[in-house]
Amino acid sequence: MPEPSSKQDLLVGIDLGGTKIMAGIFTPQLKLLGTSKLSTKSGRGFDAVVDRIARTVRDAVDESDLSLKQVRGIGIGAPATIDPEKGEVIFAPNLGWKNAPLRRELEKALEIPVFVENDCNICTLGVHEAELQGKPRSMVGIFLGTGIGGGIILDGKLHSGFNRTAGEIGHMILQVGGPKCGCGNRGCFEALASRISIFREIEDRIKEGGKSVLTEMLGPGETYRDLKSGDLRKAIRKGDKLVEKVIEEAAEYTGIAVANVLNFLNPQVVVLGGGVIDALSDEMMSIILETARDYCMPGVDNNIEIVESRLGDLAGIHGGAVLARQRLK
Amino acid sequence: MPEPSSKQDLLVGIDLGGTKIMAGIFTPQLKLLGTSKLSTKSGRGFDAVVDRIARTVRDAVDESDLSLKQVRGIGIGAPATIDPEKGEVIFAPNLGWKNAPLRRELEKALEIPVFVENDCNICTLGVHEAELQGKPRSMVGIFLGTGIGGGIILDGKLHSGFNRTAGEIGHMILQVGGPKCGCGNRGCFEALASRISIFREIEDRIKEGGKSVLTEMLGPGETYRDLKSGDLRKAIRKGDKLVEKVIEEAAEYTGIAVANVLNFLNPQVVVLGGGVIDALSDEMMSIILETARDYCMPGVDNNIEIVESRLGDLAGIHGGAVLARQRLK
Repeated sequence: MPEPSSKQDLLVGIDLGGTKIMAGIFTPQLKLLGTSKLSTKSGRGFDAVVDRIARTVRDAVDESDLSLKQVRGIGIGAPATIDPEKGEVIFAPNLGWKNAPLRRELEKALEIPVFVENDCNICTLGVHEAELQGKPRSMVGIFLGTGIGGGIILDGKLHSGFNRTAGEIGHMILQVGGPKCGCGNRGCFEALASRISIFREIEDRIKEGGKSVLTEMLGPGETYRDLKSGDLRKAIRKGDKLVEKVIEEAAEYTGIAVANVLNFLNPQVVVLGGGVIDALSDEMMSIILETARDYCMPGVDNNIEIVESRLGDLAGIHGGAVLARQRLK
Repeated sequence: MPEPSSKQDLLVGIDLGGTKIMAGIFTPQLKLLGTSKLSTKSGRGFDAVVDRIARTVRDAVDESDLSLKQVRGIGIGAPATIDPEKGEVIFAPNLGWKNAPLRRELEKALEIPVFVENDCNICTLGVHEAELQGKPRSMVGIFLGTGIGGGIILDGKLHSGFNRTAGEIGHMILQVGGPKCGCGNRGCFEALASRISIFREIEDRIKEGGKSVLTEMLGPGETYRDLKSGDLRKAIRKGDKLVEKVIEEAAEYTGIAVANVLNFLNPQVVVLGGGVIDALSDEMMSIILETARDYCMPGVDNNIEIVESRLGDLAGIHGGAVLARQRLK
């Protein structure tokens, strides 16, 4: 195991979310040395959040008994459309940011080169490089959490697309006229298999007279939407048929989305990750695989892998470190 | 205008379909010098079809007052999964072929190098190189005919995918549980907007009591499925509200498929072609555009072009010539 060097060769990966900020310190070989977390507090505005990001980085460095001077570069993923050249956040609805100069301000605060990307692209990079050692020449990452996002690796590199928005798989329409999505459309993948849509579906079925143990798990004043993906797993393990059925359906929709990706783009590997998959992989992965293979045209899925990421919520910080390493080359 | 040279520098593009074979003779600059057509007669078997392909090529050469000796290479698109390295047709349901050595046999018959690709990939190549002068770095071609197929250009080149099956957009699920598709699944794009699905939908609505002028256009013993895309245009221009509605819906589904492509892959250009679009572009293109832009996430469609191919049914032969030119370099 290589010792962390005293040279300036460490990498920092940051996962900036709507509710929390996580930072990780990595060796050049992507060994994770330490992490730290703070809440985002996006309501306090852009400058305050930049301060908090810088603090998270300092905390992670300190936690690992290292110094900021040993850090060579920082990669950060934000839930936003990004201009990676300028390092700007173009639009981040969950943070309330428009045209925010994230790189400039963070470089000012930390005096280290900063690179910015979309969070799902970053997670895809993290899985591809840190988990799969960069082996698949083509890969699609699909992340099921509060919402659903994705990223595309082609020819071994991140595919950003013409407007740098590629990977928006959450808004792929799977069911014309289906349930309403947060984006305003109907029948998006995100409206059928994200954490929010799963809880909406469960709530609807309970309102129609269905019974679920989740009702007993609600705290005072809580709604079903306050529950977590892990609560769904607990409910299923308690024999909750209503939750089991909804999760089965979400897994089927996910399998169909995977098949759409395989039929259209035909990548070598599809990786599934995010909070929903982390919590419910035993319940969902076999259904996702079976459904995806069912919906593939003959020959499309030969020797193609559909796998679960084991990085869990560390995919983002790994990807940030990968981004920094790639850009500093 | 350059004169066809006496050197061996001409290219032949062949569009091999389930019902007809078309061949075109091209200059190295992709100027079309002459074409010919024969019916495929796939019922007579592989060897007979290879003879007919060779005959179509000889006819096109003769028609253009040229000699086979002036031809440098041949590119052929087949409605099939292809092994482009071996030049083999892996599976062509419409031709009844499995593992058919198309390149070997055609090279034996004509003594000219032959290159084989999937027909929709070939059409995409033809549109990209011959119609758009190879300018878009990324492009997706979507072809609506009897069925629906597509092709992907990334980084200026054909993207074949891991199993060389990329572009199967016709079997992208747009409506889980929707109408049955020829592939066995339900709700495929092809089951919602291909010529076959349009006529199936019209037939269903007439059976349910709807009125259409198409009924009068049927010859003795003909069913609605024997009619052509051009008949749909005629019906709409005669004020046929039933046909108009079905075509509007097919255009909306097509717009949603285009949005799925833009949201996921974010190419610079999407080109629509095929018999349905050729016949009904006035009726469909504006609806396709409006729907696609409606379903795109913010920023996804900035400066992206969604256009109609003007090559019509000549896209395949142009693409064949492009393939030959690329492979002979």
